[in-house]
Amino acid sequence: LESRLPNVGTTIFTVMSRLAQECGAINLSQGYPDFNAEDVLFERVAHWMRAGHNQYAPMAGVAPLREAIAGKVAALYGTEYHAEAEVTVTAGATQALFTAVAALVHPGDEVIVFEPVYDSYAPAIELQGGRVVRMQLAAPDYRPDWGAVAEAITPRTRMIMINSPHNPTAMVWTAGDMARLAALTHGTGIVIVSDEVYEHIVFDGRRHESCARHPELAARSLIVSSFGKTYHITGWKVGYVVGPRELMAEFRKVHQFNVFTVNTPVQLALADYMADAARHERLAAFYEAKRDFFREALAGSRFELLPSSGTYFQLARFGAISDEPDTAFVQRLTRDTGVAAIPVSAFFADGRDERVIRFCFAKSEATLAAACERLRQV
Amino acid sequence: LESRLPNVGTTIFTVMSRLAQECGAINLSQGYPDFNAEDVLFERVAHWMRAGHNQYAPMAGVAPLREAIAGKVAALYGTEYHAEAEVTVTAGATQALFTAVAALVHPGDEVIVFEPVYDSYAPAIELQGGRVVRMQLAAPDYRPDWGAVAEAITPRTRMIMINSPHNPTAMVWTAGDMARLAALTHGTGIVIVSDEVYEHIVFDGRRHESCARHPELAARSLIVSSFGKTYHITGWKVGYVVGPRELMAEFRKVHQFNVFTVNTPVQLALADYMADAARHERLAAFYEAKRDFFREALAGSRFELLPSSGTYFQLARFGAISDEPDTAFVQRLTRDTGVAAIPVSAFFADGRDERVIRFCFAKSEATLAAACERLRQV
Ligand SMILES: CSCCC(=O)C(=O)O
Ligand SMILES: CSCCC(=O)C(=O)O
Repeated sequence: LESRLPNVGTTIFTVMSRLAQECGAINLSQGYPDFNAEDVLFERVAHWMRAGHNQYAPMAGVAPLREAIAGKVAALYGTEYHAEAEVTVTAGATQALFTAVAALVHPGDEVIVFEPVYDSYAPAIELQGGRVVRMQLAAPDYRPDWGAVAEAITPRTRMIMINSPHNPTAMVWTAGDMARLAALTHGTGIVIVSDEVYEHIVFDGRRHESCARHPELAARSLIVSSFGKTYHITGWKVGYVVGPRELMAEFRKVHQFNVFTVNTPVQLALADYMADAARHERLAAFYEAKRDFFREALAGSRFELLPSSGTYFQLARFGAISDEPDTAFVQRLTRDTGVAAIPVSAFFADGRDERVIRFCFAKSEATLAAACERLRQV
Repeated sequence: LESRLPNVGTTIFTVMSRLAQECGAINLSQGYPDFNAEDVLFERVAHWMRAGHNQYAPMAGVAPLREAIAGKVAALYGTEYHAEAEVTVTAGATQALFTAVAALVHPGDEVIVFEPVYDSYAPAIELQGGRVVRMQLAAPDYRPDWGAVAEAITPRTRMIMINSPHNPTAMVWTAGDMARLAALTHGTGIVIVSDEVYEHIVFDGRRHESCARHPELAARSLIVSSFGKTYHITGWKVGYVVGPRELMAEFRKVHQFNVFTVNTPVQLALADYMADAARHERLAAFYEAKRDFFREALAGSRFELLPSSGTYFQLARFGAISDEPDTAFVQRLTRDTGVAAIPVSAFFADGRDERVIRFCFAKSEATLAAACERLRQV
């Protein structure tokens, strides 16, 4: 049996969450909240189930949810997507990214990604016979090097996958970045796949630079987002993609034979829930307070905290504590200190180890306080 | 923009359901129940949501559901799958089939399918650069021709995709068929992907010949099933795959980067619901009564009904009514008679038209009675 993905093992998120559980450690590794979403959302799901909306949704999603998504995107970023032809509901953002790659990347095509890179991108590309071209984001500010990107673009470049706010670095791209990206791809057939799952989690008055704010980019972008991050329901696995109809038509060709469609009562409930825009508008302040709490509680520790401008992640250097590889360090931290984190080397193909680990602060204050008390002992 | 799936359009199910809605027709086209699932199932979902189980499930599914699946399969078919390593919960059966193909079919590999064939199989194969090898099931009994299969097997044959009970023909394969399949693939590296989503819907005292009943086949099969068909929740999009750990390991490599995991509270609710085996055991009798009702109500019509041995579908010849192509006929039937059906030519790559259409009888008696009253006028 010849593997199609010989280099793929168990994801670091599974590995660390499992270890955290085994050790009874506080799990700041895999990114998810430890507090619950609102009862009113659950009641909407139960309502639509009881009302008998339990059969196949239309392939691209139920109309009210697609309309709510198009409305939100237009209100926040200015681009008007046609709810029928340009919005598709997906089984989470990961499925949207996988499907976008499968729909658009031909064998031999090159796809540019930025390292450290979320772990699903490269296998999705390689599975379709694409070639992954890795741009480096260097610590401590992890800024893209647009000169290097310009050099990396070739006639075989089919796609650039971007992600801002960025997981795992917690960096947020600027309007200047988007302008550079637009200039570099102007007049090419390059498609942008923009992973914006943390779109509502940007700090210190920054603004999320969605591709949908930049008409020239929007015209050649598939923009992916997720309800999991925004509504504290990572386990529901509902996301969406918006993009111009030519790209969306190709996306849907694969989508309809991959998952076909997404849980109907959940979609209807999310449409109801989206009606109150305050629910996503207040998210940035909610997580900014958690970030500040976490950073202050770690001020007395020997971890060196890097900036966190968005997402619910905080990078930390541990060079002052240990010169172990980051993977060994997080395992020992999980076992001995009782706090699990993610080694950032896991996001580099060559395992580049900058002695940086990632904490998730999407946790209750009590959890964060308990974790920080342990981390201050290290 | 060069399409990766140039021949793919909108699926026939979307086309016909949309037309049915536009015309206000009774929709016997796309396969789904028009009655609701049980409140107790919805209550379990609401329970797990309120209890705070809304974050990522483990990649392969929550343990209680995997154990319930392994338990059911062992009880019914005798093969013991390891719940941890050999059972994976998926976002519906379609996603399981797509993922199995993506994980196992290399460019240039051949995959044998049986026509008429469910519409997602061939695009999934072609997307991975595989070659679709089509065996014909011929009307009216749609039996596989094992001699032809033996001739079609080559050293490049990587997979055989089977489906019993069979959609759209409503035929059920026999123990003899499984023995032939086992003999033909003995000692080869061919993987069987067995779509058994209608496993609990077999009629007239027949027995479902799961690959899991046939140890030699089970050892090289990924078996796919679905909760949608069994619990009247096609819109929830939860299915599963079972198979030996070497195959499952490859499956999961793709699965974890495709959808990663499936709705957590829904999985937990399904685990609870599976505890009562009567829920799937009584399904065959439930649908057999609907089949009988439907067939009797059409006895006075000019449709010639073919046998229906399983699934919730009934094929009908309309040659005595019209010599239109089946696609034109179902459109006219939807518009003029107010009953939508599926043209069986949609399941043939070359559009072979045997003047046969497919009705779905997963409907309340009132719906079936109303539809049949109209169909008797034709
Ligand atoms: C799919 S599990 C990983 C969750 C996540 O996005 C992260 O921790 O980075
Ligand atoms: C994915 S929609 C089609 C439902 C179905 O399986 C059928 O009608 O055959």
